[in-house]
Amino acid sequence: MTLTARLADLLGPAHVLTGADADRYGRDWTGKYDSRPLAVLRPANTDEVATILRLAQAESVPIVPAGGRTGLTGGTHAEGVLMLSLERMNQIRSIRPDARVAVVEAGVILSSLHDAAAAEGLYFPLWFGARGSATIGGVLSTNAGGSNVLRYGSTRALCLGLEVVLADGRVMNLMSELHKDNSGYDLKDLFIGAEGTLGIITAAVMKLVPAPRAHATAMLAVSSLDAALTLLNRLQEATGGLVEAFEFMPRDYMEQLRDRRPDLGQPFTEIHDVTILVELGATAPRDTAPGPDGAVPLTALLEDTLGAMLEEGLILDAVIASSEAQRSAIWARREAAAEIATGVGHSVDFDVALPLDRVEMFLSRMQADLQRIDPGAWTNTVGHLGDGNIHLAVFPTREDSALDNRLTEDVEEIVRELGGSFSAEHGIGLSKLPSMRRRKDPVALDMMRAVKAAFDPKNILNPGKTLPDATS
Amino acid sequence: MTLTARLADLLGPAHVLTGADADRYGRDWTGKYDSRPLAVLRPANTDEVATILRLAQAESVPIVPAGGRTGLTGGTHAEGVLMLSLERMNQIRSIRPDARVAVVEAGVILSSLHDAAAAEGLYFPLWFGARGSATIGGVLSTNAGGSNVLRYGSTRALCLGLEVVLADGRVMNLMSELHKDNSGYDLKDLFIGAEGTLGIITAAVMKLVPAPRAHATAMLAVSSLDAALTLLNRLQEATGGLVEAFEFMPRDYMEQLRDRRPDLGQPFTEIHDVTILVELGATAPRDTAPGPDGAVPLTALLEDTLGAMLEEGLILDAVIASSEAQRSAIWARREAAAEIATGVGHSVDFDVALPLDRVEMFLSRMQADLQRIDPGAWTNTVGHLGDGNIHLAVFPTREDSALDNRLTEDVEEIVRELGGSFSAEHGIGLSKLPSMRRRKDPVALDMMRAVKAAFDPKNILNPGKTLPDATS
Repeated sequence: MTLTARLADLLGPAHVLTGADADRYGRDWTGKYDSRPLAVLRPANTDEVATILRLAQAESVPIVPAGGRTGLTGGTHAEGVLMLSLERMNQIRSIRPDARVAVVEAGVILSSLHDAAAAEGLYFPLWFGARGSATIGGVLSTNAGGSNVLRYGSTRALCLGLEVVLADGRVMNLMSELHKDNSGYDLKDLFIGAEGTLGIITAAVMKLVPAPRAHATAMLAVSSLDAALTLLNRLQEATGGLVEAFEFMPRDYMEQLRDRRPDLGQPFTEIHDVTILVELGATAPRDTAPGPDGAVPLTALLEDTLGAMLEEGLILDAVIASSEAQRSAIWARREAAAEIATGVGHSVDFDVALPLDRVEMFLSRMQADLQRIDPGAWTNTVGHLGDGNIHLAVFPTREDSALDNRLTEDVEEIVRELGGSFSAEHGIGLSKLPSMRRRKDPVALDMMRAVKAAFDPKNILNPGKTLPDATS
Repeated sequence: MTLTARLADLLGPAHVLTGADADRYGRDWTGKYDSRPLAVLRPANTDEVATILRLAQAESVPIVPAGGRTGLTGGTHAEGVLMLSLERMNQIRSIRPDARVAVVEAGVILSSLHDAAAAEGLYFPLWFGARGSATIGGVLSTNAGGSNVLRYGSTRALCLGLEVVLADGRVMNLMSELHKDNSGYDLKDLFIGAEGTLGIITAAVMKLVPAPRAHATAMLAVSSLDAALTLLNRLQEATGGLVEAFEFMPRDYMEQLRDRRPDLGQPFTEIHDVTILVELGATAPRDTAPGPDGAVPLTALLEDTLGAMLEEGLILDAVIASSEAQRSAIWARREAAAEIATGVGHSVDFDVALPLDRVEMFLSRMQADLQRIDPGAWTNTVGHLGDGNIHLAVFPTREDSALDNRLTEDVEEIVRELGGSFSAEHGIGLSKLPSMRRRKDPVALDMMRAVKAAFDPKNILNPGKTLPDATS
């Protein structure tokens, strides 16, 4: 009996997809990592995942776990091997509003958790464009970030407990709901961000927070990135840390937005070097309860801070949302980024993190080098400025892998010199493997390989991802 | 040449202590884990630590790293082996106020970092009684908690980067200052809480936060633990999350305090079942700037919440600090806990974490079982209620290891049934090894052993701590 036939016996034939049914799982929305999986397995529960892994281990068959497949680095590329889709494990097992936790299966879609939390007056504070497709297993496996990291942290900071199926099919129960737990090594955080190379995450305990009862949202033209940082610090001081998002849209991005999504409109009559989207969120009545004149105190705090900076000339123009519709319109201009970054030809993509006060230096050095290395190349940039996280796409004048490589080396070297990281929130997958080889501390790489060997001695879990080969 | 002679050559004779000079390093302030180290090594820098480890690895000699030696679980017990004291590596390499980070060596004493941060208007938000002796290396190695975890998290949440010397003497540089860094497996968090069994932490990048400009501190008699949780939730809602500490002192503790530290005074004329220390901290002018009448808005927020609950009968009595001296006097009653827990005879000690809403059930079941198992036994309890973390000392009627064991089994079983952990913030060391063996998920224990073998194949790093033997 073939392997797929045995798997069909175990899972039911409807849940072992092959041929055209499997092909659509191999289609990659970035257009860069299409693959044809040998078969797609759709287990219904943790026991079935364990059974699959015992079989895979015995037969030394590679397994590529997948969630919503919205990753940007090719982490679910599965050419000729088994893809394990967690999509049927999509139960929200429980939401405990008093404890502010959600116990969820790995296949739960991010926006489903948003909805379920909202029904209890709570918020799961992980927010990005692909939230309608991305799953909890995927956001954990990539340690996803997004627009609210500034206030609430990345996925790792939002996870209290995990259930993981190991390479040999054993189930490790780390499903703690506790905020303090010092019972041995921190194995949980090892699986978060490991892109399925150390184990398959099947369930998790996630933190919820009180849903903000008021937001204050604005689009701003700011005189410089330094002025933007001054604004961020003043807002944090005035509000005691209520800044939920602080997003950066430079001139190149706003021009792309104007040309490719004219329907979304522009905030200002002209395009400025630095456009910022800022959002505050509050739960306390002293911030959210409208005064006698109907004004929300949180909005007044924002207006006061912006007003002072307008007078100082640090802010050039500002639009504050005065309705939920206006707030959505502002966010739509930021969330068009993923769409704008794709489908405009060959690009070299970066997801870098920098110390906040060095972002401006990074951008100016990068642009200068770019025009020297490939005059006429252009860029599209957008960033979570509050985290020092810049997403940069460079569009060279020609398709030339040597040129791509030179551009990558150059940008990464600037990042390194400024104390940054070549990988901020998108993960490693396939696309950042050369960067890992070149840029990661070699001792750390060695120890990562030792960890991989300890957890997956037969190298069946998403092989070839995350960790570059030692031999090259 | 003997090993200690070779080490004296390397470090200088003044930094290889033996005999009586070494003995004081083996004296344990809990009185439970005295040891006589073969020698105490005091390296001056990371290179010297690396040299020591290369030698130790070559000779298969165990190394026990130590900081301020204020741990409670025997983690630095070093009978007949080498102790590596990081005390000379006590430089604060830099404080970057704009980036809100401190780059520190492992031997920096916690209160020194508090002082250095305060000089910049910042705060390092890890706070507990032993702060004048505990070191950064120690708090990282135990993932220490304390009184501010509710707002700022445990040590793990406060660390951005690490430098670690591995068992073979290689130095791993993970000294990131970034808030986002997804470049491979999360090795950093593996060393935090590993009690020196996976590597020697020599330096770290720690987060700082803006120092609160106003505090509002109160001691309260509350009608029940349920009422205390209601109070906590109402304060978090009213302030938007400004509760810095929410400490629980039950009747048994307050009686001990009365009898053993009469100089510290009692907050109320009678002792209540539930006494709570609550502290709010704020940085924003809307909370901290005194009004025309001189009243600080933060204090008014506290008074309003307490006033309503007094009327409802949920709070029985309250004292609010109206000066820094009164605030210190309130804290002194809580910080006497470490002293009160020692020197009163044989005890069985617990450091457990529970879901917040199950602390009351834990305490009542524990007391009922205790009086059944050992009538006449008494307890001393204190806790970080906001984290569900209870420190419990049981004083049995007689010294009897079988009885101790029965009490431990019983208390741990209640904790397990209620979804808690047998180890919250003190770590495992020696004292919690039997609990690890009995209570930790066996698959997780296996994988911890695999991690240990990958990082320390010769088992020279603090052997016999954290992980119970597989063979018993």
